[in-house]
Amino acid sequence: MNYSIIRYILGTVLKFESFFLCIPMLVGLFMGEKSGYAFLISVVAAMAVGVLLGYRKPKSYVFYAAEGFVSVSLSWLALSLFGALPFWLSGEFPSFTDALFEAVSGFTTTGASILSQVEGLSHACLIWRSFTHWIGGMGILVFVLAVFPMNGGHLMFLMKAESPGPSVEKLVPRVKTTAIILYAVYTALTVTEIFLLTVTGMPFFDAVNISFATAGTGGFGVLNDSAGSYAPHLQVIITVFMILFGVNFNAYYLILSKKVKSALRSEEVRAYLLIILVSGLLIAYNIRGMYSTIAEALRHSFFQVASIMTTTGFSTVDFAKWPQFSNTILVCLMFVGACAGSTGGGIKVSRILIMCKTALKELFTIKHPHGVKTVKMDNRVVEHETIRSVNIFVIIYVMVYVISVLLISLDNHDFTTNFTAVAATINNIGPGLSMVGPAENFGFFSDFSKYILMFDMLAGRLELLPMIVLFAPMTWKRTK
Amino acid sequence: MNYSIIRYILGTVLKFESFFLCIPMLVGLFMGEKSGYAFLISVVAAMAVGVLLGYRKPKSYVFYAAEGFVSVSLSWLALSLFGALPFWLSGEFPSFTDALFEAVSGFTTTGASILSQVEGLSHACLIWRSFTHWIGGMGILVFVLAVFPMNGGHLMFLMKAESPGPSVEKLVPRVKTTAIILYAVYTALTVTEIFLLTVTGMPFFDAVNISFATAGTGGFGVLNDSAGSYAPHLQVIITVFMILFGVNFNAYYLILSKKVKSALRSEEVRAYLLIILVSGLLIAYNIRGMYSTIAEALRHSFFQVASIMTTTGFSTVDFAKWPQFSNTILVCLMFVGACAGSTGGGIKVSRILIMCKTALKELFTIKHPHGVKTVKMDNRVVEHETIRSVNIFVIIYVMVYVISVLLISLDNHDFTTNFTAVAATINNIGPGLSMVGPAENFGFFSDFSKYILMFDMLAGRLELLPMIVLFAPMTWKRTK
Repeated sequence: MNYSIIRYILGTVLKFESFFLCIPMLVGLFMGEKSGYAFLISVVAAMAVGVLLGYRKPKSYVFYAAEGFVSVSLSWLALSLFGALPFWLSGEFPSFTDALFEAVSGFTTTGASILSQVEGLSHACLIWRSFTHWIGGMGILVFVLAVFPMNGGHLMFLMKAESPGPSVEKLVPRVKTTAIILYAVYTALTVTEIFLLTVTGMPFFDAVNISFATAGTGGFGVLNDSAGSYAPHLQVIITVFMILFGVNFNAYYLILSKKVKSALRSEEVRAYLLIILVSGLLIAYNIRGMYSTIAEALRHSFFQVASIMTTTGFSTVDFAKWPQFSNTILVCLMFVGACAGSTGGGIKVSRILIMCKTALKELFTIKHPHGVKTVKMDNRVVEHETIRSVNIFVIIYVMVYVISVLLISLDNHDFTTNFTAVAATINNIGPGLSMVGPAENFGFFSDFSKYILMFDMLAGRLELLPMIVLFAPMTWKRTK
Repeated sequence: MNYSIIRYILGTVLKFESFFLCIPMLVGLFMGEKSGYAFLISVVAAMAVGVLLGYRKPKSYVFYAAEGFVSVSLSWLALSLFGALPFWLSGEFPSFTDALFEAVSGFTTTGASILSQVEGLSHACLIWRSFTHWIGGMGILVFVLAVFPMNGGHLMFLMKAESPGPSVEKLVPRVKTTAIILYAVYTALTVTEIFLLTVTGMPFFDAVNISFATAGTGGFGVLNDSAGSYAPHLQVIITVFMILFGVNFNAYYLILSKKVKSALRSEEVRAYLLIILVSGLLIAYNIRGMYSTIAEALRHSFFQVASIMTTTGFSTVDFAKWPQFSNTILVCLMFVGACAGSTGGGIKVSRILIMCKTALKELFTIKHPHGVKTVKMDNRVVEHETIRSVNIFVIIYVMVYVISVLLISLDNHDFTTNFTAVAATINNIGPGLSMVGPAENFGFFSDFSKYILMFDMLAGRLELLPMIVLFAPMTWKRTK
């Protein structure tokens, strides 16, 4: 293990976090809020530790998958620790564990809160909550790659470890340029949403927060009822942008490169939109009796479907009160998640597609034992290696899931709460059902359960392997 | 598709069922019960249809995987239909759907009942319920293979389609001899249990029923409280036999062939016993406060653990009232299931082992990218084909699971009920939690949901593919 490069990357990440923390600090100091000073201290602390860690250049630039996974997981842990610092120092959170939970929930774009109400928070804390979503959505290391003159060849391992999906494609040959393109599209879409929300009547502060949270598919809002009290047309705009941020960003790059046709031909994007459409219609039909007009049922249905499928986690109504059929559809969507290469979490549409296709191929071979049939996506043969990695992903996913549900069941809450609490965190969604429904929060869990759920959020955001590798004793055994 | 051989196999299965139905018929007529006549009519009906279907010899003996799967699934459907006939004719079941549910639940060794109490049933119906478990446990087609002079080479496809586990091993070169050995061990163990239960004080009728249900890992009892009111030492005997019937039968063959050492070296059997031990101890510790002595807590804990893990489904207490941690362990065990090649259901210990080992191998490759590491079981390399089939199994399993939960959620019962009702049926266990807990029954579900759950029971018992192939349009498309 090349420890020096890991140390160096960690230092770089903290320096960047220090810069990011300046934004809420300025908001706080400008608004004359006490919490501004909490952020000031955090800016200094992050910079100090960052400089300390990054002072000496790494001894070697040797960099493999193991280094990639460990750098990424440690970076995210450091990011969360220093991100929690201002929450804790501000005194607006009950304990350090709670502050850390909120920070992890923010960076991993989960949006699960331990607070029962957010309207009492300072502006500085509110904007930092949303901003962590925005940073975590596209990924801090992708950002580092985009703006920092790092070199040494194996940067792809970093990007692979942080980016979601069964296989990471470079849009252009250079990793750095790919990262810049991704962040440019991301920023442009965010600014568009802020603009549209503001001109159609949302207060600017709300618009910025909501857009950051939509962009990262996070879900922290600034009102106690999430998006419930915004005007219907604003909810529709948010719905559209949630869906847009769940699309594979490769599609936007293709559109920018004037390859609109191949963007529209993407099987993953098509399946993603189809699932939203069908789920939205089924739920609207199922809940039609609960609302005065069909339009209202459709609006609420599509808002929650988009919110859950993209793993954002906003809500306009308490969907835990919907009929069981609608709830079950939403629980299914929690696991499916958004497209690979988007800011959304979950298992990802492309993985689900590959698994369905593998199963179909099997049925085909029973009928035609001598026919050869390969699994194809977008008219290209899916490599055996990709199918294998999808299977491994799902196996580890289920293991982490089961162990988590088992451990938090020690708190003795009901099965639906435990099952959906883990679903809501490992898939980076936010709300679940029962005691963790959209009108509830995660504050009642024991500290032990909160740490389990934090692990799940990080494992979910980093797609399991980085967190598993970090905690596997095998990783730290010296090879002779 | 070779339809004539499928027809012929179906006829043979029904003729055998007609013979099996004679046992409850004789019990009923002997005890002077009205239901004896219901069984008499069923015996005649099954024989008539059996003779009709089997009258003409098949035109060809060509037999491949597709024919194997379709024969098995259709045989089980026919078995269930004619098995439900006496229940329905007896008038002791509310409707034909309910009678069919009970028969499917019997043959698939699930043991989920639609009745709130069984103590009012006639002896004929009671013994038929338990006997269906015994027939279904080892498999009707394995029985046909054992006693019927069928030939034509590809009989292995039949055995493969009906026997549980990721790979079916022939104990001896001839399929027929393998089938005979399996049924001999099965019968010997059953008779031993009947004997032990009777001499230690259980009424003979109860002992026969309980032993049939233990052998098939079914779970239908003759008392309303399942095994709750039997003396503690009888509960212990049942616990031991449940565990014995969950062991891979290959181990018994090895012991009979005086290869005791290799029987004890089986990784699957070891893992299976270890899981029972650890779960039993954890639950006993968790529930120690609910019972007056540690011994009582241990007895109840190990009884339910053995019952759920082997997918039998007996209960001595209402474990739905246990703390959530114990319940969650039991829910996990529902999915793990017993050993491959046993009469138990679930995903099977060997599949879980293979998946865990595949995941571990992956972690190893991250640290040692150039090291080659194969997955091994019992010191033999697990073939790529087996790993692939395990993955396909799990993918299809999850799909069937999710769709089933979604469809039965239309009844609008709570999530825990729906989730564990499907778990209890697809894994052939019987009781779940909440509204389908051990003190409850499945009678309240709509007919639609009951048919979904029947499909799940059959799909679970036949390990998915036969039922999927039967309903896949692709199977029935004519190949040009």
